[in-house]
Amino acid sequence: MGIGIENILAVLPKGIEKTSVYVEGNKIVSVGEMPPGFECNRTIDGEGKLLIPGLINCHTHSYMAFMRNFADDLPFMEWLFGRIDPLEQKMTAEDAYWGACLAIIEMVKSGTTCFNDMMMHIKETSRAVMDSGIRGVISRGLVGDRDNDGGRILDTFAEREFSKDCDRITVILGPHAPYTCTPEYFKQISEIAKKEHMSIHVHLSESMSEIEGIRQKYGMTPIELAYQNGLFDVNCIAAHCVQLTENDIDILAKNHVNVVLNPASNLKLGNGFAPVPQMLKKGVNLCLGTDGAASNNCLNLFHEMNLTALIHKGVEKNPEAVAATDVFNMATLNGAKALGLETKIGSIEVGKLADLTILNLNNPSFMPPHNLIAALSYSANGSEVETVMVDGKIIMENRKMVTLNEELVYKKIKEIVKRIG
Amino acid sequence: MGIGIENILAVLPKGIEKTSVYVEGNKIVSVGEMPPGFECNRTIDGEGKLLIPGLINCHTHSYMAFMRNFADDLPFMEWLFGRIDPLEQKMTAEDAYWGACLAIIEMVKSGTTCFNDMMMHIKETSRAVMDSGIRGVISRGLVGDRDNDGGRILDTFAEREFSKDCDRITVILGPHAPYTCTPEYFKQISEIAKKEHMSIHVHLSESMSEIEGIRQKYGMTPIELAYQNGLFDVNCIAAHCVQLTENDIDILAKNHVNVVLNPASNLKLGNGFAPVPQMLKKGVNLCLGTDGAASNNCLNLFHEMNLTALIHKGVEKNPEAVAATDVFNMATLNGAKALGLETKIGSIEVGKLADLTILNLNNPSFMPPHNLIAALSYSANGSEVETVMVDGKIIMENRKMVTLNEELVYKKIKEIVKRIG
Repeated sequence: MGIGIENILAVLPKGIEKTSVYVEGNKIVSVGEMPPGFECNRTIDGEGKLLIPGLINCHTHSYMAFMRNFADDLPFMEWLFGRIDPLEQKMTAEDAYWGACLAIIEMVKSGTTCFNDMMMHIKETSRAVMDSGIRGVISRGLVGDRDNDGGRILDTFAEREFSKDCDRITVILGPHAPYTCTPEYFKQISEIAKKEHMSIHVHLSESMSEIEGIRQKYGMTPIELAYQNGLFDVNCIAAHCVQLTENDIDILAKNHVNVVLNPASNLKLGNGFAPVPQMLKKGVNLCLGTDGAASNNCLNLFHEMNLTALIHKGVEKNPEAVAATDVFNMATLNGAKALGLETKIGSIEVGKLADLTILNLNNPSFMPPHNLIAALSYSANGSEVETVMVDGKIIMENRKMVTLNEELVYKKIKEIVKRIG
Repeated sequence: MGIGIENILAVLPKGIEKTSVYVEGNKIVSVGEMPPGFECNRTIDGEGKLLIPGLINCHTHSYMAFMRNFADDLPFMEWLFGRIDPLEQKMTAEDAYWGACLAIIEMVKSGTTCFNDMMMHIKETSRAVMDSGIRGVISRGLVGDRDNDGGRILDTFAEREFSKDCDRITVILGPHAPYTCTPEYFKQISEIAKKEHMSIHVHLSESMSEIEGIRQKYGMTPIELAYQNGLFDVNCIAAHCVQLTENDIDILAKNHVNVVLNPASNLKLGNGFAPVPQMLKKGVNLCLGTDGAASNNCLNLFHEMNLTALIHKGVEKNPEAVAATDVFNMATLNGAKALGLETKIGSIEVGKLADLTILNLNNPSFMPPHNLIAALSYSANGSEVETVMVDGKIIMENRKMVTLNEELVYKKIKEIVKRIG
């Protein structure tokens, strides 16, 4: 089946231009002219609309969506171990499925087409990815020690087997954090990642208490610990990286570690501001994540783009600290690179998968439609997203999910909260 | 004509409860039971909705809406004098009308029912307020000296005469800033304000270059200069107040100055973070403003609530620095107090004017509907606003403006930009 998105302003690698984009199967087959012999089953009129690559959320915990606004204005360790953990203990696998569905609805409605998720109950999250049509990179949160991880690494491989027929799912390894994994466990995971050609998704240098704890225990920073125990020997997606030394930044840059900025979560939990201009200067691949809804409290990449574009200007007292184009790249191609998917997604190019987001320009965020990249970063809030395509299939149209039943998901979420909240 | 908003979750002064709100003429006549003899011409079913007081934007420049995304990532003085001023010089009074219409559409669509505006061409902005049905507090930006202000004070009084029959408009005095007004002019304006019982709206302590310039010229801070020249002898609405000394904060607190936080603008222009927790501690009345679209680049108070709730937690490394309830109060009752309208607007109470905003709860921002004040501050982005009433009249319904023709406004804005952009 072929879909033509015609006469639309599109954010292409070479800039913004009015063009047409043709999709066949799950791929972009032309940008410009309709290819000879193209069978156009569906035409979308691009008048008054903007086409961008689907946004990529490089760090979240989707099942947490039902914990939104449950634990606000609390210190990090109290938030995590005092409030969130107990809720997680009461959660069933079925709850995780509905939580992931809610998260996916929110992400898709704000233009996200791919997310990198660390969670428990990965099978149910995979089901939500399968059912919704979104693209997901999935890791079981691994905590513990080499000989005592409660079967979590095994879970990872069971999940890889379970989802092997779904092209939209990539399973990777998810050592949770330096304060929940031993160095030996990090090493074991690195070895498996190398052998199995898997990426690693980890939390690093998020809070001051983590930094202090790791320094007391191991006499080094979390970045140094991760480095010494092999996490950076493979493609590594490191979430947070808020509290960094100069040496940490050098290690991240030299080892091509992908750093996921989570500004909303880092602010909300009082963890501070990541040294973004410094990392940009040293060429670290920066991408964006929402973190879970329990610490944000939304899963909207427009929110993260906006915060990233704004807050470092304030910290540095420099209105040129981070530019609108920087944050747009972070939310698209840099995210694809981080997930090892840059040949497949992250930009609108022939041969890439058709993960596309269409925005309506007839609203105040884009009025006047002057500098559209600035508008995406500073003015838009995600509600301008109208239609979302993943893998060549429309999964949201005119702000209605095509694949999931929104009302049913909301009903289930309310039931879960009534039971365990 | 009576309107009943029935069985709705409402944010009342005593907390959130399910109730009904009855409006007759331009006033709230009952919260709870339908009053005896009430003639209900229109019923709004509150199922799945949330009723809040209309939000109050305490500092903006509405005509600037057409300058959105025209001058990004530039230092403050270059932004103002190099880019924005030249655009303003080319602008006609008619352009200002359409700019104000665009601004009002954006504000209403994100739940704002009253705004405090400083601008040129006040007559046209007043017309936009009259035509749209929103509530406006209006000041001509006053720049110059006691004997050389280009007739701007006279403009203010002409405007007061022009709009005297519209209850929704309050005209106040708007000395622009310490770097555009002489101390003698400040004094003159203060005297007039006292005599005429008018409030004052001024920019104070916004950028480092302002602080340095004022210190060099007068040997004091902008706050001290404003204080010494009488601006705080009347009700004063001071926008920005980013760069403050301890003594400045004491002066603001003791003189009951209303400080308008403009976090997006202050970040975007690299001006930094206002000392919000310190001002909260000293009891300064804090409210929120968007500033103009040229430096934000949106006029959405949900954005300002969210930033205010988040950024100071990051600055202070304290997740309890500013609470969700604090920012909700800033956007409602504190704003009403700042504008001298606290007996009329800012909360849902019998006898107050019916300035009301209705949000749809059936969307991810409010799912689960657990802590709704937290959801308003951390999760919502304003697109959940469905219906807005000002002065007892519905001016937006189901996200469509009832009073203004949105398509016509967008068309006019595009024409202006083509001509002067």
